[in-house]
Amino acid sequence: MGKPSIALILVAPQMGENIGAAARAMANFGLRDLRLVNPRDGWPNDAAQAMSSGAFAHMDDVRLYDTLEAALHDINYAYATTARPRDMVKPVLTPREAANEVHARGDAFKTAFVFGGERAGLDNDDVARCHAIVSAPTNPDFSSLNLGQGVLMMAYEVFMSAHTAAEPLAQDAHLPAPQADFDNLFTRLEETLESGGFFRDEGLRPKVTRNLRNTLTRARMTEQEINTFHGVIRALAGLRNTH
Amino acid sequence: MGKPSIALILVAPQMGENIGAAARAMANFGLRDLRLVNPRDGWPNDAAQAMSSGAFAHMDDVRLYDTLEAALHDINYAYATTARPRDMVKPVLTPREAANEVHARGDAFKTAFVFGGERAGLDNDDVARCHAIVSAPTNPDFSSLNLGQGVLMMAYEVFMSAHTAAEPLAQDAHLPAPQADFDNLFTRLEETLESGGFFRDEGLRPKVTRNLRNTLTRARMTEQEINTFHGVIRALAGLRNTH
Repeated sequence: MGKPSIALILVAPQMGENIGAAARAMANFGLRDLRLVNPRDGWPNDAAQAMSSGAFAHMDDVRLYDTLEAALHDINYAYATTARPRDMVKPVLTPREAANEVHARGDAFKTAFVFGGERAGLDNDDVARCHAIVSAPTNPDFSSLNLGQGVLMMAYEVFMSAHTAAEPLAQDAHLPAPQADFDNLFTRLEETLESGGFFRDEGLRPKVTRNLRNTLTRARMTEQEINTFHGVIRALAGLRNTH
Repeated sequence: MGKPSIALILVAPQMGENIGAAARAMANFGLRDLRLVNPRDGWPNDAAQAMSSGAFAHMDDVRLYDTLEAALHDINYAYATTARPRDMVKPVLTPREAANEVHARGDAFKTAFVFGGERAGLDNDDVARCHAIVSAPTNPDFSSLNLGQGVLMMAYEVFMSAHTAAEPLAQDAHLPAPQADFDNLFTRLEETLESGGFFRDEGLRPKVTRNLRNTLTRARMTEQEINTFHGVIRALAGLRNTH
């Protein structure tokens, strides 16, 4: 079997040192695909290079994105890493459980682990874009992990899983579509809702949209299901136009 | 059951930042007993405080020692953490295996995990004082973990083991004696050997001593066995004097 395809996405990281520490932890455990969304101090970054101990030479070129949406475009399944329970219905896994899940799915899945910035972590919209939450078990009296440590723990568990777990199950016949396909569908849904006057209260719109996205994300639609859903929206909108 | 009693010992750490990162990782996973052997920049250390994010408030007072021997005085079982295979016969475990072992022994054992300094790691004499080696599985092309990351991985596995493993087995009836008792015995042995002209080649003496220590350390003697062994040395030495 091939190795699971795993990307690590840092959303709005602040200190270059932490990006470097994250890269070092990735390379320690054989991960190669690092993506940055709006790093505060730009990219490339000297502090990151210095802290990485040469890790970048063992990885693919770092990719830079303006939005988490863009960074997830080719990803089939995304985990949001956050210590905080959210007001969203979503599976919550430990790093070990997530790593075993990734391993069991085999290498056709493209997986992302998404980490927030040092100060604020991931916001609710970021979390809503992901399929599940990974929450590290820690001492409740002193639970804050820094970014490099969080990445290390996840990368380590992925590595351990690949080296200790049983062979993956047969390929899941229901591969979730790449995230860009889902986003197209969701954009269409949102626009269609807007043109239909769905969002009566502009103040509530972000929250309503987020909840919608979260619910649909949980469905983990395949490409075929997404095509079907496009048809559903088209049909519903067409119905509306005839009234 | 109580919690296993676990100390973390850093031998000749260099940068205060790394001591602080180690402390943070310990507190994240509920470890409280940090011991320093000859920290290069002394103790207390401002850089360590800054990097710890307040971790020291969640721990016992850090203890300072001149030698690893002194730091191990009350420890029943010590693990040397090192990536390098050594020319010594000793059990080698992964962090997960070591953590499960510690958990299974229950809380009468005092355990230490011993980490070397940033540049050189543990020397052979340090390793010879320990009962087993912990070696972290990493990417062979980029295997170097920094000190804080190594401590994190070990502390995390100890925490996971306590929260996921089965209850410990009944107390091991053969608790290894505190290390100071073993050291007394070994010193006596060494002195007795010296007075008997055992060390003919002074150049080889360190290596011969180390190998002896390593072999006896593997025996994990109880206090009673150590008493017996004192008798053995006394008897042998007395016997020699009569010749």
